[in-house]
Amino acid sequence: MAQTREAIRATIESYVRAVAKGTVDDILALYAPGATVEDPVGTPVRTTDAEIREFYGMVEPLTQTGEVLTVKIAGNSAAFLFRLVTHLGEQDIVMEVVDVMTFDEDARITGMKAYWSEEDMQTVPSS
Amino acid sequence: MAQTREAIRATIESYVRAVAKGTVDDILALYAPGATVEDPVGTPVRTTDAEIREFYGMVEPLTQTGEVLTVKIAGNSAAFLFRLVTHLGEQDIVMEVVDVMTFDEDARITGMKAYWSEEDMQTVPSS
Repeated sequence: MAQTREAIRATIESYVRAVAKGTVDDILALYAPGATVEDPVGTPVRTTDAEIREFYGMVEPLTQTGEVLTVKIAGNSAAFLFRLVTHLGEQDIVMEVVDVMTFDEDARITGMKAYWSEEDMQTVPSS
Repeated sequence: MAQTREAIRATIESYVRAVAKGTVDDILALYAPGATVEDPVGTPVRTTDAEIREFYGMVEPLTQTGEVLTVKIAGNSAAFLFRLVTHLGEQDIVMEVVDVMTFDEDARITGMKAYWSEEDMQTVPSS
């Protein structure tokens, strides 16, 4: 049975919340075994659990706020725009990214590709 | 030499303008030979010039307005959110889509995947 749109949308919301506020384990729980991560697109694809844990381990200690702005679902795939704000004392780093994900039939993430570059990061006074 | 961000951005703007207001030839001129089109994602990939012409031939006669809302570039790829409004007498069909494209070194499109489904189309009174 195919995953529902609602389940895909829920995974995306949980993902952005986990990246902003959760632990590496919270994030990894949303991934299917064997998943791949390419972030940003054009860099080497992370294919092992250890590589993916290492990647998300970099964001775990940060104080962040996340928000899903737009979700477009097509079949078992989705593209979504989200905003991640990293709070660094008197400054915030605001980043807007489009992630493209594929999902298995339980709406777990089987692949993630992130589209962004340095021009999508802005440093602003903290709000 | 790699394509510049400015060239990729210009191709995306030209693409949305051509889809909204241009001819099939205007659109095809932005594609590299051998390009592929998957619109929406999950449907069969169009791989030949004839298939791609047939696809864009469906939108050529429509009266449309297009607008690029957000562009995220990563390496030789980009994901962008755009809005396409089709004017049908007293009604408009408003559609928001995320397209993901890859580009060759001349910033011509080598692959296009469109993320949307029926829920991303809305019929509203014409403005």
